[in-house]
Amino acid sequence: MLIVQKFGGSSVANAERVNNVARIVTDAYRQGNEVVVVVSAQGDTTDDLIEKAAEINPNASKREMDMLLAAGEQISISLLAMAIEKLGCPVISLLGWQAGFETNSTYSSARIKRVNAERIRTELDRKKIVVVAGFQGLNKYDDVTTLGRGGSDTSAVAIAASMHADLCQIFTDVEGVYTADPRKIHNAQKLDEITYDEMLELATLGAQVLNNRSVEMAKKYGIELEVLSSMKQVPGTKVKEAIKMEKMLIKSVAKDTSVARVMIVGLPDSPGIAFKVFECVARAHINVDIILQSVGRDGTKDITFTVPAGDGEKAVDALKDLCDRVGAKSVAFDTDVAKISIVGAGMETHEGVASKMFEALSDNNINIQNISTSEIKVSVLIDKVDADRAVAAVHAKFFGD
Amino acid sequence: MLIVQKFGGSSVANAERVNNVARIVTDAYRQGNEVVVVVSAQGDTTDDLIEKAAEINPNASKREMDMLLAAGEQISISLLAMAIEKLGCPVISLLGWQAGFETNSTYSSARIKRVNAERIRTELDRKKIVVVAGFQGLNKYDDVTTLGRGGSDTSAVAIAASMHADLCQIFTDVEGVYTADPRKIHNAQKLDEITYDEMLELATLGAQVLNNRSVEMAKKYGIELEVLSSMKQVPGTKVKEAIKMEKMLIKSVAKDTSVARVMIVGLPDSPGIAFKVFECVARAHINVDIILQSVGRDGTKDITFTVPAGDGEKAVDALKDLCDRVGAKSVAFDTDVAKISIVGAGMETHEGVASKMFEALSDNNINIQNISTSEIKVSVLIDKVDADRAVAAVHAKFFGD
Repeated sequence: MLIVQKFGGSSVANAERVNNVARIVTDAYRQGNEVVVVVSAQGDTTDDLIEKAAEINPNASKREMDMLLAAGEQISISLLAMAIEKLGCPVISLLGWQAGFETNSTYSSARIKRVNAERIRTELDRKKIVVVAGFQGLNKYDDVTTLGRGGSDTSAVAIAASMHADLCQIFTDVEGVYTADPRKIHNAQKLDEITYDEMLELATLGAQVLNNRSVEMAKKYGIELEVLSSMKQVPGTKVKEAIKMEKMLIKSVAKDTSVARVMIVGLPDSPGIAFKVFECVARAHINVDIILQSVGRDGTKDITFTVPAGDGEKAVDALKDLCDRVGAKSVAFDTDVAKISIVGAGMETHEGVASKMFEALSDNNINIQNISTSEIKVSVLIDKVDADRAVAAVHAKFFGD
Repeated sequence: MLIVQKFGGSSVANAERVNNVARIVTDAYRQGNEVVVVVSAQGDTTDDLIEKAAEINPNASKREMDMLLAAGEQISISLLAMAIEKLGCPVISLLGWQAGFETNSTYSSARIKRVNAERIRTELDRKKIVVVAGFQGLNKYDDVTTLGRGGSDTSAVAIAASMHADLCQIFTDVEGVYTADPRKIHNAQKLDEITYDEMLELATLGAQVLNNRSVEMAKKYGIELEVLSSMKQVPGTKVKEAIKMEKMLIKSVAKDTSVARVMIVGLPDSPGIAFKVFECVARAHINVDIILQSVGRDGTKDITFTVPAGDGEKAVDALKDLCDRVGAKSVAFDTDVAKISIVGAGMETHEGVASKMFEALSDNNINIQNISTSEIKVSVLIDKVDADRAVAAVHAKFFGD
């Protein structure tokens, strides 16, 4: 079996953890598998390097930043290879370009165009464990690029896709994907399986387990992912196409508190006004999520919508001119809101899922401000102070106390 | 003019020093020169990385050590490029392989086979300052190699040679080559010029200014070197072919205290015994320097010779068997000796240089244990405690008090 294993920065943060990863990798190898390992930079290396750069030139070019940051994985792959050598297994470390990662030229957030896995194949045929630097590649000018934060997940899936791997294991500091954040909800349950689409909804909603691009790529190429712990040897959660009818209606309750709510008050109630508002926002490259349009009085109405927390101010700036022109009363934003979501492929064929969620919130006196739904998701916007209580209430309603 | 500038690890040890180097480089560029800069890893980076590796696997393969260590220059070139960007000059950093360094496959002490400087040329034609990672290259397997300690000097000279540079400047923490160590001898004089051969003798003798291989390569390709300070903007010392008769007979007085003296006492005075001794030592890959063979008594003789300080024990181990077999009385080593040398191309055509040196030592009651001479050098072995006094006495004799 050909297995791709990916370990994040915290999994290789120090010598002891590097040795631990080496044990996991050599175990898989000694069971007769071909093993390709993708590693991120150690713990805080990336942040340390960014700090060094900022001291010298806060406006450094992205090309040089990528050159700098790529040193981080170079250190971690060679150290992991040394740890594997010590355990007596043949091994070789490869930089992004040596492993065949060809990317476009968007420095600091490059897209993988192709993985030419010839060299990896050759080394596997020599019975070696291959340790590959995640997060980095080479563009057509032969310059080093990086994929942006979380890119190592994508590196791993890209190798798995190009080599038709049987499994891609993403090792993290959690044991898998849960019905809710296990640090907050004591009886949160680990899921055995979840579909790509459900995982994508969860990733977008702030459950920081897997990088979104990596899930999209896994879905596109049909790569089975497994999210599991590098610290505890227990089965994790498999991410794959839905193959059987799921027993559980919903898979997980997620909370996202990095949301800003933008409110425009007193817009004239004329045709096309909503279009104009969202055209302004789109032009500023801001993603809009939940939208609420009030029924107006006195020929005016209000429009409220949510954006990522960091884009609140930008959205208000983008709308100021329009609001002045059409004579709106005010435009402002706040970040006192949280988005609570339930995700599950089962809900599209079952009625009453949304109302069960609303009931749980209502029973706990939590006011719902906005609602948004998709085929496999229901999201509500509530006061930020109620967020943890809301997750607990909804989780208890669906999964028991 | 095409100038290659090389800066060592201490010259780029922190943000302030990186900015200082950026000023030197941009000054040369703004004077209308094409500038290629070769940089070593920052300050203690290499030592830090070696320590990290030792913690994980003290017997790590050299291939993985090279992969690890090469990250050091990757960090320093990108940081220097950022500092140059801040000063408003166009710049690009290149790793060893991007700069075209092809080496053999002797990991950790690879030899440069060729510098394919096409990419450097292209970037210079685009009016860019090119910052190149010293110390590293790529072998025929597309694997990263390093040249061994001090290799960045060689990298700089190799680029200068392959691009027919007009000048290769080696920036260090001293202002040039001196008639003696300026930290010890207050009236040591900076030399304007020195020949390649003189520089080679000085390098071998422990005046750690320039890496030996870099001087050999500069001599071979006729590259004019300049050794100068990165801290103080004053002219340094030029290293070149002798073109005119030098005024000074000798150029410099050097001290080497990392010497071990190996003594074999009571060897049978039979034909071929010296050959057998040095065959043993050669087989252990130990370089022998000054040799003294005593006239024996009672049919025995003693042989004394010097080796690098770190090889003393190895030499004794290598000789034990032989000494037992031939019935020698003892073999031992000590490191209580120092080698004092005078170097200068002028001395081969002038008599009395050596005796002038011996007189200076004798006048100061310093006992000479051994003597070794070449065309441009006289070395004597003395007690280590006398080393500094000896340098002062010899320097005063030749250069005045």
